[in-house]
Amino acid sequence: MNIQTQPRLLQSYVCGQWRTGSRDGKPLLNAATGEVVALIDASGFAHAETLDYGRSKGGPALRALTTHQRALMLKEIGLKLLDMKEDFYAESLWTGATRADGWVDIEGGIGTLLTMASKARRELPNVHVIPDGPVEKLSQDDSFSAQHILSPMEGVAIHINAFNFPVWGMLEKIAPNLIAGMPAIVKPASQTAYLTELMVRRIIDMDILPEGALQLVAGSAGDLLDHVTCQDVVTFTGSAETGRRLRTSPAIIENSVRFTMEADSLNASILGSDAGPGSEEFDLFIREIQREMTSKAGQKCTAIRRAILPAQHVDAAIAALSERLGKTVTGDPADKQTRMGPLASLDQREEVRDRIAELQRSARIVLGDPDEVQVGSGDTKRGAFVNPVVMLAEDPAQAAAHDVEAFGPVVTLMPYESNEQAVSLARQGKGSLVASVFTNSNEVAHDLVLGIASYHGRVMIGNRKSAKSSTGHGSPLAPLIHGGPGRAGGGEELGGMRAVKHYMQRSAIQGPPELLTAVTGIWSDGADAQQGQHPFRKPVSELRLGDQIVTPAREVTQEDVEHFAHFTGDTFYAHMDSEAAKANPFFDDRVAHGYLIASFAAGLFVDPDPGPVLANYGVDNLRFLIPVYFGDTLQVRLTCKEINPRENAEHAEVRWDCRVTNQKDEVVAQYDVLTMVAKEWP
Amino acid sequence: MNIQTQPRLLQSYVCGQWRTGSRDGKPLLNAATGEVVALIDASGFAHAETLDYGRSKGGPALRALTTHQRALMLKEIGLKLLDMKEDFYAESLWTGATRADGWVDIEGGIGTLLTMASKARRELPNVHVIPDGPVEKLSQDDSFSAQHILSPMEGVAIHINAFNFPVWGMLEKIAPNLIAGMPAIVKPASQTAYLTELMVRRIIDMDILPEGALQLVAGSAGDLLDHVTCQDVVTFTGSAETGRRLRTSPAIIENSVRFTMEADSLNASILGSDAGPGSEEFDLFIREIQREMTSKAGQKCTAIRRAILPAQHVDAAIAALSERLGKTVTGDPADKQTRMGPLASLDQREEVRDRIAELQRSARIVLGDPDEVQVGSGDTKRGAFVNPVVMLAEDPAQAAAHDVEAFGPVVTLMPYESNEQAVSLARQGKGSLVASVFTNSNEVAHDLVLGIASYHGRVMIGNRKSAKSSTGHGSPLAPLIHGGPGRAGGGEELGGMRAVKHYMQRSAIQGPPELLTAVTGIWSDGADAQQGQHPFRKPVSELRLGDQIVTPAREVTQEDVEHFAHFTGDTFYAHMDSEAAKANPFFDDRVAHGYLIASFAAGLFVDPDPGPVLANYGVDNLRFLIPVYFGDTLQVRLTCKEINPRENAEHAEVRWDCRVTNQKDEVVAQYDVLTMVAKEWP
Repeated sequence: MNIQTQPRLLQSYVCGQWRTGSRDGKPLLNAATGEVVALIDASGFAHAETLDYGRSKGGPALRALTTHQRALMLKEIGLKLLDMKEDFYAESLWTGATRADGWVDIEGGIGTLLTMASKARRELPNVHVIPDGPVEKLSQDDSFSAQHILSPMEGVAIHINAFNFPVWGMLEKIAPNLIAGMPAIVKPASQTAYLTELMVRRIIDMDILPEGALQLVAGSAGDLLDHVTCQDVVTFTGSAETGRRLRTSPAIIENSVRFTMEADSLNASILGSDAGPGSEEFDLFIREIQREMTSKAGQKCTAIRRAILPAQHVDAAIAALSERLGKTVTGDPADKQTRMGPLASLDQREEVRDRIAELQRSARIVLGDPDEVQVGSGDTKRGAFVNPVVMLAEDPAQAAAHDVEAFGPVVTLMPYESNEQAVSLARQGKGSLVASVFTNSNEVAHDLVLGIASYHGRVMIGNRKSAKSSTGHGSPLAPLIHGGPGRAGGGEELGGMRAVKHYMQRSAIQGPPELLTAVTGIWSDGADAQQGQHPFRKPVSELRLGDQIVTPAREVTQEDVEHFAHFTGDTFYAHMDSEAAKANPFFDDRVAHGYLIASFAAGLFVDPDPGPVLANYGVDNLRFLIPVYFGDTLQVRLTCKEINPRENAEHAEVRWDCRVTNQKDEVVAQYDVLTMVAKEWP
Repeated sequence: MNIQTQPRLLQSYVCGQWRTGSRDGKPLLNAATGEVVALIDASGFAHAETLDYGRSKGGPALRALTTHQRALMLKEIGLKLLDMKEDFYAESLWTGATRADGWVDIEGGIGTLLTMASKARRELPNVHVIPDGPVEKLSQDDSFSAQHILSPMEGVAIHINAFNFPVWGMLEKIAPNLIAGMPAIVKPASQTAYLTELMVRRIIDMDILPEGALQLVAGSAGDLLDHVTCQDVVTFTGSAETGRRLRTSPAIIENSVRFTMEADSLNASILGSDAGPGSEEFDLFIREIQREMTSKAGQKCTAIRRAILPAQHVDAAIAALSERLGKTVTGDPADKQTRMGPLASLDQREEVRDRIAELQRSARIVLGDPDEVQVGSGDTKRGAFVNPVVMLAEDPAQAAAHDVEAFGPVVTLMPYESNEQAVSLARQGKGSLVASVFTNSNEVAHDLVLGIASYHGRVMIGNRKSAKSSTGHGSPLAPLIHGGPGRAGGGEELGGMRAVKHYMQRSAIQGPPELLTAVTGIWSDGADAQQGQHPFRKPVSELRLGDQIVTPAREVTQEDVEHFAHFTGDTFYAHMDSEAAKANPFFDDRVAHGYLIASFAAGLFVDPDPGPVLANYGVDNLRFLIPVYFGDTLQVRLTCKEINPRENAEHAEVRWDCRVTNQKDEVVAQYDVLTMVAKEWP
């Protein structure tokens, strides 16, 4: 039991200090026992200062670091948080979360932080400003080009979060903004803010983040949104009504502030017409509904609210759900027998009961009773318990469940007759975070998924093959976008490095290539180049963008091509048979192998002796542009294009622009050669 | 002279018909002569129907086409519009545009359409649903993966446009939405709607676009925005005040409708501290200011409003501007001597004069007189003429010009003492579409451009090398994003294929790979594969995703490596010298060349006889993952991954997943092989 003799007064971390609000704290209650577990108040703060503190302290300190340095910071924080996870689980119980629910929030949140940190080091260059897309050539003579770049926005990311995921909700949002180089202010929902406060306290105590990179407002937001500028970003997770109010607040509209919203979502799960009772997909569908109803007591933005299924399987589905839900013990989350905890508060329970009453106008309850609570443990008066409720909308096109969200263990079954009708019902949600489709048929998957994709941010297909490995309908994942159009808020979070870019400004930089290179750190055609010492003799400490070698020319003979063909086994007719080659629409005669061109090119540009270039680890965007015929000569121009030093390693990844030309100076092949180069040599 | 005996009553093209409004038309006047050139009215339309018509007719018809088919339609339209360009130039004169101004609008607009059409065919696959990013592996055993896709949104793109670019403003917006597969409704600003109406009429008459793909509302928008849903997109170009009103309109907020705004922008141009009088960059800076002030009489969203320059060069700049502006003849745009035409209307002239008065509170006029008009031709009473005005803000940090936009030939000079101050002044615009920096110094370019990038959608660097090829400060280009944060509206238009994606919904599709492949059209690891006939024997008509060959194994010997080294000339020590190779941090001994691995792989998988595979035109994402030592054996698995038929050609681009493994079944190299395959064979 969680007995608190002296509930703790939550503090906000603003302007470099832990501070209490100016009023007495409002009590926050244990969802299962009703005991006061904490007091909350954040009144009296002048948030113009909070914002300025983030902008003037946190922003410059984060922007002084590179993307990989920021990611390594997050990795260190994540690993330390994992070490102290039991402290978070202890307070997670107060929210009504079972151990399994807490796992999603706590370890799911920390895992998201670690995944983002790891992807950042794999997928982003180690830089201050991220290139976006290729160089755009704007003139024939390479005297005017452009490159898009992403720069960190210079304001603060303000995250206004929901009560249901006090840990994950914070970490999934601050990971992208911190990797982008932007500081954060987190304002958790009051109901469960003690857990967020505890974690922020631990993170601040680690002293890993620069001062001002993370602030916390534990309590009401006050005037936080009144002072935002065009460089700030606001995210909101919660009810559509509050979201609309915040989205239209004067400073946000006045300054076109980026506003990302994740709000009500009436997510659907569809059982394919191929998947009748007795099929594995039918069982998976039933299991997923039960899981989504009972995990976090259905208090998940991604939970299944509408179960769309072939009309002939409705009875079987009710029977199967009845059996599964009958085994789902509701009770005190601290009790090991408990499979489903209480809702977050008694107010939430009243809210859910009201919504069920609304749903009943166009659907009837087929399982459960919202007003009668049965528990395996816990106090049904002071604890916000409610049992699962399954409803059936016999005229599904008219169901209130397309518009009314009961944020608890409630699902509405909707029978369908055809794929078109199933698609149409799913779309009646007017935009959702996620839908799932249970089928083992290519055709059903194709028609249903593409039918609903434009209304959804994520669509999961479940079948027998993925039964064990599937992460499930309700789990947002760091590599995949989380958000949906319309009612779901129109936002987009996560999605790997896409999420980082929401905190950066994309700018097209255009100009003469040598000045572009000075700005972007990427060499391009037309920029200055330096010849002299072979660039493979230079360690990173000496290597400069534009360091270049132009090789002697080498003739490609018929003997070379035939020799290569027999040596490698690649005796494709276009290399071997003049008549057949001439019949090919792209060739005038026998041609050299593309791989021979690239191999000869390496023979021309490589410097053989031990030196700072340690390995060629790959090639990007190789294109064979013009055929090479017997007697043509090849010449290579290799130019240092990008230098990305690895943190915590003795080498950099160096990308070389490789251009192979023939005797007419036509480019026959172009590609990037990827090497690892020692930072120092010898 | 443009004498219209009977001004034409503009019509709207809605629900498949040219229709007139229910009231008498409001007269639209020739900007230079004051004559009535057209009448406009669009009252009485029920736009719920207009929207439904686009959604139910245009949307499905466009979505039935592939990306390349849509792009080819636009190419055909663009080429036909070019043929009839003189008709557009004739009416362009009425707007006050000189021939040069009209070129930007008309040929610039058609050129944008053609560039987008061409880039779509080069940069997008020829599909209905566009993949976004790589497959994300979500399980160790390849039984659960994800792929992001972009689907066309299923509503209508509503474009509410500004008066200054009646042609470009429409074409730059409809090109992306049509390529995306979404229909458009264009609502031009009334003042110059006759030119937009003329062009829409010509496009509809071509009968190239499917019915419902393009509608026009010539007149007030009426209830157009009251019926938008989560699948519609609204773009707006115009004043910030109107933009704010539209952005917060109830249906847009209620449904989280995507809203892209391009509004007021107080664009800056900065003269670098290296570029004093006498330098080429100084002259280019002066020339650019003069051009931007006088092109379209300064009525461009991208025009230079603030000229930020070293304090010591202010006098020289005024003298140089005085000389250049003295030669700029204001007058009737139909007159060949005219360099600058009138503003769009007498109302606009009043508006500009009012704004100049506001600017005068913190700046003084140093050149020109807003109230005294001198023309080379034209009627100064009925024509909306005004001459260029240059102002100087001696205390630039306090200048009203950071907040007040005079939408005419007006610029404010702002002296600076340091790079930091120049950056700070540029950022006082609170977010702009574009800034330019004139410098020939790498350091100045680096510091100024990166200092202001996060406040700008585009930054142009000008110097002597790009003087001839530069497209200039004021020109948005199809490949580059157009839009800016904050005051500029926070939107993003153009930017090549980025623009197309604004009209598509991104969805993460996750599931077992074989069902993912059925949905996305991309084969990935874990999906079904078929072996049997060598897939290189199959034309596109027979080839299926997952068609696969697994080759026999081949040993790599020391002789092979030495032979390849001497044959190609690539005698890098890691292949040749055991002691030196062992000293390398990545190798345990001498290794095979990466190019040898790829060459042997081709030797293993190629089918030598003439067949449907016509050529290997490139390789993507080649990574050498594990070193290959002497005695290792290589085996290749090649699988058909993507099939992209070319329109109007006899072949498809086919992408193959190529995986090379060693005797321990470790992947030593992985890449995509790109081939052209005949649609039919023989």
